[in-house]
Amino acid sequence: MSPASLRGLGLEELLEGIAERRTRALARALSLIEDGDPLRERLIGSVYERTGSARVIGVTGPPGAGKSTIVDRLAQLLRQDDELVGVLAVDPTSPFTGGAILGDRIRMQSLYTDPGVFIRSMATRGAMGGLARSTLDAVDLLDAAGFGWILVETVGVGQDEVDVVRCVDSVVVVTLPGLGDDIQAIKAGIMEIADLFVVNKADREGSDRAVRDLEMVLSLVESRSWEPPILKTVASRGEGLAELLVGIRRHQEWLQSCGELERRRRSRLRLRVENLLKERVLVAVDEVVGLQSTLDRAFDGHEDPYAVAERLFNAVGAAENGS
Amino acid sequence: MSPASLRGLGLEELLEGIAERRTRALARALSLIEDGDPLRERLIGSVYERTGSARVIGVTGPPGAGKSTIVDRLAQLLRQDDELVGVLAVDPTSPFTGGAILGDRIRMQSLYTDPGVFIRSMATRGAMGGLARSTLDAVDLLDAAGFGWILVETVGVGQDEVDVVRCVDSVVVVTLPGLGDDIQAIKAGIMEIADLFVVNKADREGSDRAVRDLEMVLSLVESRSWEPPILKTVASRGEGLAELLVGIRRHQEWLQSCGELERRRRSRLRLRVENLLKERVLVAVDEVVGLQSTLDRAFDGHEDPYAVAERLFNAVGAAENGS
Repeated sequence: MSPASLRGLGLEELLEGIAERRTRALARALSLIEDGDPLRERLIGSVYERTGSARVIGVTGPPGAGKSTIVDRLAQLLRQDDELVGVLAVDPTSPFTGGAILGDRIRMQSLYTDPGVFIRSMATRGAMGGLARSTLDAVDLLDAAGFGWILVETVGVGQDEVDVVRCVDSVVVVTLPGLGDDIQAIKAGIMEIADLFVVNKADREGSDRAVRDLEMVLSLVESRSWEPPILKTVASRGEGLAELLVGIRRHQEWLQSCGELERRRRSRLRLRVENLLKERVLVAVDEVVGLQSTLDRAFDGHEDPYAVAERLFNAVGAAENGS
Repeated sequence: MSPASLRGLGLEELLEGIAERRTRALARALSLIEDGDPLRERLIGSVYERTGSARVIGVTGPPGAGKSTIVDRLAQLLRQDDELVGVLAVDPTSPFTGGAILGDRIRMQSLYTDPGVFIRSMATRGAMGGLARSTLDAVDLLDAAGFGWILVETVGVGQDEVDVVRCVDSVVVVTLPGLGDDIQAIKAGIMEIADLFVVNKADREGSDRAVRDLEMVLSLVESRSWEPPILKTVASRGEGLAELLVGIRRHQEWLQSCGELERRRRSRLRLRVENLLKERVLVAVDEVVGLQSTLDRAFDGHEDPYAVAERLFNAVGAAENGS
């Protein structure tokens, strides 16, 4: 256990702080997760038995759709019902510029001073898959800490984020009037796993058209036992949010009544384990033969990718054999 | 070697047909690739030494931007220069409906009757990563067959397709007037790896605005030694296509002059090998312990994902050890 990575806090002390929902302990634990600290595995291993009771809601959609405002309003409504609320704003960084896509958010000040709400932006500076891993670890942490509702906000681009959205219990897809045919661009991958649709900024021209577009897209999708409702909101004025929360609660009841909640959580575990195994094999290959140097030689020798992959996989097996 | 998977054609015969660019042989080889036939690895292994001379151009952008028309026009222009052209239209199928996103395309009839052009849609019915793998294998095949230019058309959503786009030599991003702020939704992941931008349907209102929007986005990106040009086209009437091809040729010259081509091809190999290793470890785990049944027991025992992944990885090592 490295004192540096704990920044002066013992693991026991950290776990105690998490159980008591102390902001400082939660923030440190989330930093360990985000930084990919090796302690992360022990941390999740330690809290995991207390997870499973939080309702995990994903809110996704294109930039500018008003996801943050919707999440803030939902948090506010849940607080009126005395629920404890965790908010994770997933912030993908660009592979090229290193900059964040979502940029600075202005959130409701009242939420920051409420000890029943914990808000955190999740960024990633690491490899592919790192964002989904960190976010799902963070969900576990807040769940174990006793937050009954966890709202995960994500811009919904890239496989990483689709992975996150696939791992929540209820998926709210936010769109806005005026996207027109370009709704198609959002549709793929995300539209079809939506449990609830929101047309936000519904006071703008074209909101009826946006609802009709969504209805059309939905009519193309095979019918399921849950029919995703399409709701209109003006989140900046708080309009339609109570109805959205009712819809989310109804979806949560449906999830539990038909066994779908368990099915989703089983696939959440599968996705996480698969991603960890994939990371693990690359680390093992790198330790045994040095991934980049082997690839450089393979490139220079014009070796085909299948032959290279098979050779590297066997090298890992042989090393385990020899050790 | 299974006669079923070769559909009555021997591997030698198939390789001969590929080398002579016979349509029937190419189509069968591409079906083997697309179906994930085990013969695929031998096929790529056999043709790989003849790859490396094709120029691989990716054309990506949202649905409705006119990518197919642009690709068809480029193929036509290249044929006037007596180049051999392969076209791969990447067609992601939806995980939920199983339906294709791009849908039916109407391509120029003249291209279909020209033996110097080979056109194929690539769909995937398999796992994540399957589409990128199949497409890159298909690029190798057409490259080995002697097609000097390979145009890869993709809608540009999802990690799989971003992977494809990262693996071509020149990336053309097609947009259209009227996307407005929603250009942001396309931007992430794709915008920053664009080598050339095209505003298609430039006879529509808002094309100057679209160019300015792109200029603004580009101004936010760190400057590189290659400045991506922004070109206007009306592909349906063939306007601006000759200029686009000039731009692509200029980019190809730049790639070769500064060593960037080799750098991109090295990272293409790395991505392919990494993806194959990731698939390989999941297959190995499944063979040794049965992935789904182990995950089901882990879920029922509320075991944490890190512990499960470590146990499964060690099980594979132990099996290799015992064998």
